[in-house]
Amino acid sequence: MVQDQPTRLGRRLSAILAADVAGYSRLMHHDEETTHAKLTALLADAVEPSIAEHGGRVVKNTGDGFLADFPSAVQAVRAAVQFQTRIKELTIGDAEDRRIALRVGVNIGDVIVEPHDIFGDGVNVAARLESIAEPGGICISSSAYDQVRGKVGVEFTDLGEQNLKNIARPIRAYAVA
Amino acid sequence: MVQDQPTRLGRRLSAILAADVAGYSRLMHHDEETTHAKLTALLADAVEPSIAEHGGRVVKNTGDGFLADFPSAVQAVRAAVQFQTRIKELTIGDAEDRRIALRVGVNIGDVIVEPHDIFGDGVNVAARLESIAEPGGICISSSAYDQVRGKVGVEFTDLGEQNLKNIARPIRAYAVA
Repeated sequence: MVQDQPTRLGRRLSAILAADVAGYSRLMHHDEETTHAKLTALLADAVEPSIAEHGGRVVKNTGDGFLADFPSAVQAVRAAVQFQTRIKELTIGDAEDRRIALRVGVNIGDVIVEPHDIFGDGVNVAARLESIAEPGGICISSSAYDQVRGKVGVEFTDLGEQNLKNIARPIRAYAVA
Repeated sequence: MVQDQPTRLGRRLSAILAADVAGYSRLMHHDEETTHAKLTALLADAVEPSIAEHGGRVVKNTGDGFLADFPSAVQAVRAAVQFQTRIKELTIGDAEDRRIALRVGVNIGDVIVEPHDIFGDGVNVAARLESIAEPGGICISSSAYDQVRGKVGVEFTDLGEQNLKNIARPIRAYAVA
């Protein structure tokens, strides 16, 4: 009934954080070099320090964003709140139509971990949650919410059950208020 | 808003497995030395090898049972199914009122990890799920079920929402069928 499988040693409960730049194509169309330079600076100055401080790692960059994983969901949400706040501070002087803002999704998954990638339903759900987050916002699944409620010093808005693209079951989502 | 806390480095998503012997007091009252020797043998021959094979660790022994944690919920349930099956095989010749059977609960928690203990709501929920499991059975929370469904080669029975002792919110539980 329980068979050995080659993947079993690589399985791990992770908090998966997916992020991308809202309106990236528009921003790049407008001014490629400035957008690229600003994003690079925000990742280095705001995002990467927060992820490292909270025990996470950037698994891969996706051009207009990144995928990260954390051993703890509480730490993943703390990191996201911290770097979103920092990005707002760093971009407050920019014109609204040129301002870089990240959308962030956080989910928990029992994923298959490799050195430079992670695989599993849980990763897809994180990416889909990111796509429904507001620019500058954070959207998390109910499984992440169950682990972080009352532990991260922020309020959440219940978004109800969401039918996410290519995800078979509806996922209840919460936004950081 | 996000403060450094002394516990933050020790937080980790874990699959928590709580187990105890059904009717332990009765068995001990009946024959202390035989019960103790049989339980010690079952832990060594059935339980510990399954936990180790699936990447888990016994966090502590509780006299009539133990607490274990695993990096993966899929692996925790595979381990539990394997050792419960093995215990049934090893005890099949025993008289019914002398037979040792474990009740097992599995939950996911973002817990605070120390070398010889783990702390958090998630641990309490695992212990309460164990208390509603059948002798020889496995009861898991919906958060564990969400991660293992379709991945462990066993069927589950939906037990509905359970009001567990000292747990504020009802927990939806599933039993391995």
